[in-house]
Amino acid sequence: MRELTIPIEVNGKEHIYEQIYQYIKKEIIEGSLSEGDRLPSTRALSEHLEVARSTVGLAYDQLLSEGYIESVPYKGYYVCRLEGMLYLEQPETKKEEKKPLRQTVRYDFSPNAVDVSSFPMSVWQKINKEVLSEHYNEILELGDPKGDPGLRRTICQYLHSFRGVKCREEQIIVGAGNDYLLMLLGVILGEGRKLAIENPTYLRAYRIFSSIGYKISAIPLDENGMQVPALRESAADTAYIMPSHQFPTGVIMPIGRRMELLNWANEKEERFLIEDDYDSEFRYRGKPIPSLQSVDKRGRVIYVGTFSKSIAPAIRVSYMVLPQELLERYEKNCSFFSSSVSRIQQNVLAEFIRGGHYERYLNKMRKLYRNKHNQLCRLLEVFEERFEIYGEGAGLHVLLVSKDPLVTEEELVEKANKTGCKVYGLSSYRIEQAIQDWRATVLIGYAGLTEREIEEGVAALKRAWLLEENE
Amino acid sequence: MRELTIPIEVNGKEHIYEQIYQYIKKEIIEGSLSEGDRLPSTRALSEHLEVARSTVGLAYDQLLSEGYIESVPYKGYYVCRLEGMLYLEQPETKKEEKKPLRQTVRYDFSPNAVDVSSFPMSVWQKINKEVLSEHYNEILELGDPKGDPGLRRTICQYLHSFRGVKCREEQIIVGAGNDYLLMLLGVILGEGRKLAIENPTYLRAYRIFSSIGYKISAIPLDENGMQVPALRESAADTAYIMPSHQFPTGVIMPIGRRMELLNWANEKEERFLIEDDYDSEFRYRGKPIPSLQSVDKRGRVIYVGTFSKSIAPAIRVSYMVLPQELLERYEKNCSFFSSSVSRIQQNVLAEFIRGGHYERYLNKMRKLYRNKHNQLCRLLEVFEERFEIYGEGAGLHVLLVSKDPLVTEEELVEKANKTGCKVYGLSSYRIEQAIQDWRATVLIGYAGLTEREIEEGVAALKRAWLLEENE
Repeated sequence: MRELTIPIEVNGKEHIYEQIYQYIKKEIIEGSLSEGDRLPSTRALSEHLEVARSTVGLAYDQLLSEGYIESVPYKGYYVCRLEGMLYLEQPETKKEEKKPLRQTVRYDFSPNAVDVSSFPMSVWQKINKEVLSEHYNEILELGDPKGDPGLRRTICQYLHSFRGVKCREEQIIVGAGNDYLLMLLGVILGEGRKLAIENPTYLRAYRIFSSIGYKISAIPLDENGMQVPALRESAADTAYIMPSHQFPTGVIMPIGRRMELLNWANEKEERFLIEDDYDSEFRYRGKPIPSLQSVDKRGRVIYVGTFSKSIAPAIRVSYMVLPQELLERYEKNCSFFSSSVSRIQQNVLAEFIRGGHYERYLNKMRKLYRNKHNQLCRLLEVFEERFEIYGEGAGLHVLLVSKDPLVTEEELVEKANKTGCKVYGLSSYRIEQAIQDWRATVLIGYAGLTEREIEEGVAALKRAWLLEENE
Repeated sequence: MRELTIPIEVNGKEHIYEQIYQYIKKEIIEGSLSEGDRLPSTRALSEHLEVARSTVGLAYDQLLSEGYIESVPYKGYYVCRLEGMLYLEQPETKKEEKKPLRQTVRYDFSPNAVDVSSFPMSVWQKINKEVLSEHYNEILELGDPKGDPGLRRTICQYLHSFRGVKCREEQIIVGAGNDYLLMLLGVILGEGRKLAIENPTYLRAYRIFSSIGYKISAIPLDENGMQVPALRESAADTAYIMPSHQFPTGVIMPIGRRMELLNWANEKEERFLIEDDYDSEFRYRGKPIPSLQSVDKRGRVIYVGTFSKSIAPAIRVSYMVLPQELLERYEKNCSFFSSSVSRIQQNVLAEFIRGGHYERYLNKMRKLYRNKHNQLCRLLEVFEERFEIYGEGAGLHVLLVSKDPLVTEEELVEKANKTGCKVYGLSSYRIEQAIQDWRATVLIGYAGLTEREIEEGVAALKRAWLLEENE
């Protein structure tokens, strides 16, 4: 047994028991006290240090519970064996975060931006307050893994009325964003699948399914969407499609092609279609086209939609509608996953929809986006000699396709960049950068810009792409 | 070309264009109009039906965009080919939802319950309101995939002060609950891993990693935690452990065992330890034991924690701290995953912590749980003749281990059930139900019960387990 003379600061910042604990711990770590060494009894040490015995007791308890010492009945406290490595405070080297060089983008024509300036924050706030005070405790509990029944019922009704989706609320799974739901869907569908995906596409889905080990076949599009012969040639058992409004091409899949895809899915067991209906809310002509799910008679379609696009990106609420067969697999294998959305947010959202605020907001946004869309299309008329314009009538961007086969996409993007505009080359949405039969194509999104910015931005694009050569 | 005599209800519920559209669609679907049939021109049909030409135009536009008809320049409108399947409204059969028979559980000693009755809802509400009004638009945008920098900074400081975690804020990933983060971690770590997991354990983690295809080795525990020789015998490259307070056994891993595990991880490339620090906030004796991450010098530990346990289950916010090597993989392969937590909630939570409310709430809860814990342990003294009591001093449950080798777990659970108590058998947390060297063991959680319920519940358990035989 060693005598421990611990320098105690009686009025120090640290409690006396803490000082004793830290001292002994340090001695053990540094090897001054080693395996099997016996510590003084609490009585002996307390007398030696002239502190209360209970204070020493506290320090020993802490050392005991962290496993630095052990207590042998009727014998005393002994230092434990510590494996090789030692505990030393050593600040990690701080790695400088690399910040990308900021380019001066004055007009960002991002196809993924949304306009949140009209969001009825005061309504949202009011509902938030009501939900928090009315439900109180219950709302803090975990809740249904699929999502709150009230919200699912509301989504079910909404999908039925607005998208023709036919389902029961028990088929709906609410999740924190599409990325999460696609990961979960990967678990439900099981390992080793082969996924056909439109090319070009929303690369996020491509990346998620690749990251969970799915083999991906990139299927080319024609003016009606995914080419079915190419789908048949691939060994795919699942296809990920955006029939209402393909991103980024803007193709709207006609009923004939939808039927062909459903027939493909019906031909074999274990074939499924994932319908991503990501921005069906924004359509400026005619009435919305019913979902693919609505014409699926045999439970082959998984319908996925989101509020992140239609309300605000920060609202991390998406939903998927599982066909019966997959619902059963979910119940069996995956229902242990806790819901990934806070119940508070689920309740606020349900109330927002039920109270008619969502519909009003959608109508307002549709009008706002339509105005921007029409303004942009009008301003783009001046480009018609050199470009074809595609994808109008829906969504939040249009495509400009160069008529000149010698113009490259990079050239367009770079020239735009020089006049302060950021436009998005179509090739960045391609899965494979192989032979391209498309001419140079750029995406022009408008949702995130004000009408004034759209006007100025298009003027800048004109300088970039039309005037330059005349100067 | 067929003459179409469409019965128009001028003052009907549906707009006239809608009636025309529905009529023609139905004709096509039912085969009365078939592939290649030419429709009357808009002029002809409008004259025939005595409606405005633009009304017919609207109906044709809708049919065009849904792909039922096509327009051939200078010729007119033709019915498209529809693949075999037809669109028919046919309500799906409603499956009755099976509701489990409700048993009359008066005292649910669930080890997973939490007490949310003291949650400072008014503070949360106030911060919510401030956050929504101050940040307004910005907060509706998508934000950083890892989580808001402000929240990550706050978590970083909190983890450093309270758990000794050494990290930079860029190593922190915020996610919607542990389940999500473990799925994401699975993607970061990559396919085909072999995971060692404590047995018994938190089965959720077991299920998640199984569902993403990891091979699982169930490693037995001794009184210091996961047995290292068994870990070495398994071919595992990753181990999932709860060193601060193992669930469900309550084992607190001493420093010696921690070092052994770290040494195991250091011996080979690609070995990692996942430290789940799920309820380290609730410890009733001594000061908290620093995290395993805090003694990891070589970046082998992934630290995972959650606010769902310490604030409320509905707060779906968890976080993980990635070591440098995995951070780089995340940045390279996974940073496209959008954040799964609403920015509103992230900001409210950050403010809740920064304002000191979290610490105050934790102190309050620790006191509240300590009182319940002490009360329960006092009441359980009467069982000491027949049971050993383990796992006190931390967490939200204790274990009762029968001293009688003939008593079975089922017996204990069933008898308790008859007196209105729900207790949880240890075997339901076991990965494999093989040979059990443990005696019949039940978990008694107390967090979800009031002090009065604990008193009444334990009295009921006494009737169930002690008195019966004397009657």
